[in-house]
Amino acid sequence: MGKEYLDNEITEQRLNQLVQALDSGLFVHARNMLHTMSPNDVALILESSPPKNRQVLWQLIDQQYAGEILDELGEELKDSLISSMTPEKLAQATIGMDTDDLAYILRSLPDGVYKKVLKSMRSQDRDRVEQALRYPDDTAGSIMNTDTVTLRPDVNIEVVLRYLRQRGNLPDTTDTLYVVDRQDHVLGGVRLVDLLTCDPSVTVRSIMDTELESIPVEMSDKDVAQKFERLDWLSAPVVDSQAKLLGRITIDDIIDVIREDAEHSMMGMAGMDDDEDTFGPVLKSTLRRSLWLTINLFAALLASSVSNMFEGTLEQFATIAILMTIVPSMGGVAGNQTLALVIRGIALGHIGQSNSRWLIGKELSIGLLNGLMWSILVFFAVWLWKDDIALGGLIGCAMLINMTVAGFAGATIPIMLKKLNIDPALAGGMVLTTVTDVVGLFAFLGLATLFLIH
Amino acid sequence: MGKEYLDNEITEQRLNQLVQALDSGLFVHARNMLHTMSPNDVALILESSPPKNRQVLWQLIDQQYAGEILDELGEELKDSLISSMTPEKLAQATIGMDTDDLAYILRSLPDGVYKKVLKSMRSQDRDRVEQALRYPDDTAGSIMNTDTVTLRPDVNIEVVLRYLRQRGNLPDTTDTLYVVDRQDHVLGGVRLVDLLTCDPSVTVRSIMDTELESIPVEMSDKDVAQKFERLDWLSAPVVDSQAKLLGRITIDDIIDVIREDAEHSMMGMAGMDDDEDTFGPVLKSTLRRSLWLTINLFAALLASSVSNMFEGTLEQFATIAILMTIVPSMGGVAGNQTLALVIRGIALGHIGQSNSRWLIGKELSIGLLNGLMWSILVFFAVWLWKDDIALGGLIGCAMLINMTVAGFAGATIPIMLKKLNIDPALAGGMVLTTVTDVVGLFAFLGLATLFLIH
Repeated sequence: MGKEYLDNEITEQRLNQLVQALDSGLFVHARNMLHTMSPNDVALILESSPPKNRQVLWQLIDQQYAGEILDELGEELKDSLISSMTPEKLAQATIGMDTDDLAYILRSLPDGVYKKVLKSMRSQDRDRVEQALRYPDDTAGSIMNTDTVTLRPDVNIEVVLRYLRQRGNLPDTTDTLYVVDRQDHVLGGVRLVDLLTCDPSVTVRSIMDTELESIPVEMSDKDVAQKFERLDWLSAPVVDSQAKLLGRITIDDIIDVIREDAEHSMMGMAGMDDDEDTFGPVLKSTLRRSLWLTINLFAALLASSVSNMFEGTLEQFATIAILMTIVPSMGGVAGNQTLALVIRGIALGHIGQSNSRWLIGKELSIGLLNGLMWSILVFFAVWLWKDDIALGGLIGCAMLINMTVAGFAGATIPIMLKKLNIDPALAGGMVLTTVTDVVGLFAFLGLATLFLIH
Repeated sequence: MGKEYLDNEITEQRLNQLVQALDSGLFVHARNMLHTMSPNDVALILESSPPKNRQVLWQLIDQQYAGEILDELGEELKDSLISSMTPEKLAQATIGMDTDDLAYILRSLPDGVYKKVLKSMRSQDRDRVEQALRYPDDTAGSIMNTDTVTLRPDVNIEVVLRYLRQRGNLPDTTDTLYVVDRQDHVLGGVRLVDLLTCDPSVTVRSIMDTELESIPVEMSDKDVAQKFERLDWLSAPVVDSQAKLLGRITIDDIIDVIREDAEHSMMGMAGMDDDEDTFGPVLKSTLRRSLWLTINLFAALLASSVSNMFEGTLEQFATIAILMTIVPSMGGVAGNQTLALVIRGIALGHIGQSNSRWLIGKELSIGLLNGLMWSILVFFAVWLWKDDIALGGLIGCAMLINMTVAGFAGATIPIMLKKLNIDPALAGGMVLTTVTDVVGLFAFLGLATLFLIH
């Protein structure tokens, strides 16, 4: 805990000092501070700065690390910085960048700029780019690196060790060397640990792990992440449809996928785009958020039109109007609890054909049980408050109906959306709230109309 | 995409076959199927099964892998299976389990069982347990493993290589050996890659990385995860307050922390405990969820009591009652968008003293802009619907007020909660919705009372 505090403190302090330096026009001082920081820390500081300071900071950083810093930034900020760079500067920044990040940046450029950047690149980098751009976004191909080191099966470990010493280094986060035949088919893998602990006189074939699973290049990156998580992998070879080695995916890329996926669910449930930059410009953010608000306006008008059907009742009994928000509100919360549980279950791969009916039954039972519990509570609450036992009974019945529907809808909506290939994290909450609002109002106002109006 | 489908299909199919086998009483067949699966797949199947089948499946699995399977399960399911095991079986299952998981399991046992399990364990495992239990949950200590391999600085690499060959293996996911002095102080690290590529005649000291950062044992696991993510680490040494080596944290443990943290935020925002088992028993789930519903009932009653203050207005104008849910609903959605953004920003460490005021100002501006946009829209919508320009004007004004408050509250509430050491993902949504409901109703009903009642 002490250290946690300290760590945030240091970033805080640095940020404060930087902001002060910028505000007082001490640009040389600010530049010197930036140059002593790691690319990761510079990225963190850029993310945490308002737009005005970002452009200044970006001018002051060591251009040599521009690529590494860009790698670490969120998409919206990355895009805005890239669009402010000249093609020459961009080409320079791409030197030493990971293939996957390089492809990302080039994909986001307008055509004219793209060609200029390619022209300014060194030829070997240009080859890498062309390779990387071949695979669509969100697939194994888009997150793989092509800098794999391969071995032949019939070589002695002694020879391998000599080769490695000559080579002098291995690509970042290499933990396994892949064994391939002459056609580049993956035969197995040899972990660095095995090279260090085995008898050097044996062949690669005799120690290689032939059970090594390869990732098809077109597999979705989320599925790759699930595999890594489930099987505790550190890296895996990526192959084409002929099982030929194309590259490797390492766990640091997987962490980004997991983080993005989680952010996507969390932000999506609140009707937000997970690309949205926390410190981005006001107008852009406002427009980004308006789609969700538009949909909600329609949902709210729909709920109002339900109330409108019972105008007569509302005219006669103001108390009904006062109480009519309670039932939809409780249904919304109960339904959202179920929704969150089911969305997580789908994301973890726990929910399928064989158990979804059981799950819906379970959530329906919880809804019924919840309904009974809360209808009794709200019956007493309203009876005591309004001194009207009939009114208490009405709201209790409406609560029972709406909570049961909420449990059922909370479970079925995401499962149905998933079947329709619509992301349940994005659309689920809005559909659900509309259902619980409409059913809640209908139940309460309908019952009130039936039993109170004579 | 093809493969993704296939992968889920295979799990689906297996699950279906297993369920069929269980339903037809073919237990031997089911057991044979289970024995051919990896512990990870068995865990997935347990997670995906209703309670009735789980107990049967658990009886059928190969007890030799019970520990590994338990490792992979969610907390609620893990707890329920553990509670059904005899101390002897539990002790047997703990053989070969990672230290951190072992500690988790022992922590969750009742005292009597705990002592019996300890007694049935081998003495070397007992030592590991005592070590692991020393550190509180959610700290670096609780996720570290103690099976580190250390080197002395003045030894030649040649000697190290000979030692490793004699040793024959290294602990799982070892990528770096730590260099320590006689008092176990960490001096640096040597990556396996370096051992393979360096000249074997030099000393450990000459190739070790002295910049290696150590993790204090009491650091929170979330902060450790942030460090791993930010600095792209695969592993890190864990030290006590005297900088003495205690163990190491590897990236596979970090992925669990990240996943749990993300689930916690997502489930927490919906008022759910992230431990909740998707296929758990109905009664337990119902009780778990009731806290949130209780709080919501109070919030809903609070909103109703606001409406109650304007009973006179509602008595005179049923249309007001019909429209009164629109303003709170829009404010709730807009506020939740801001809330999700700020909660993510806090989780990523982007928001601090230096920029929170700027951020609140930005979200306030977005709220104002949103308010202007939607107040104009809703003004026209209501004017057209109810053919009443004054009513349209009233609801428009209320919308402007509530959207602006929503932007402000959405940004300030999580920042304030964080300062009070309350998890914003847990409490934020409820506090925010209460604010937007109360302000929305107050603004609309208050304006209506002022301008319509004469």
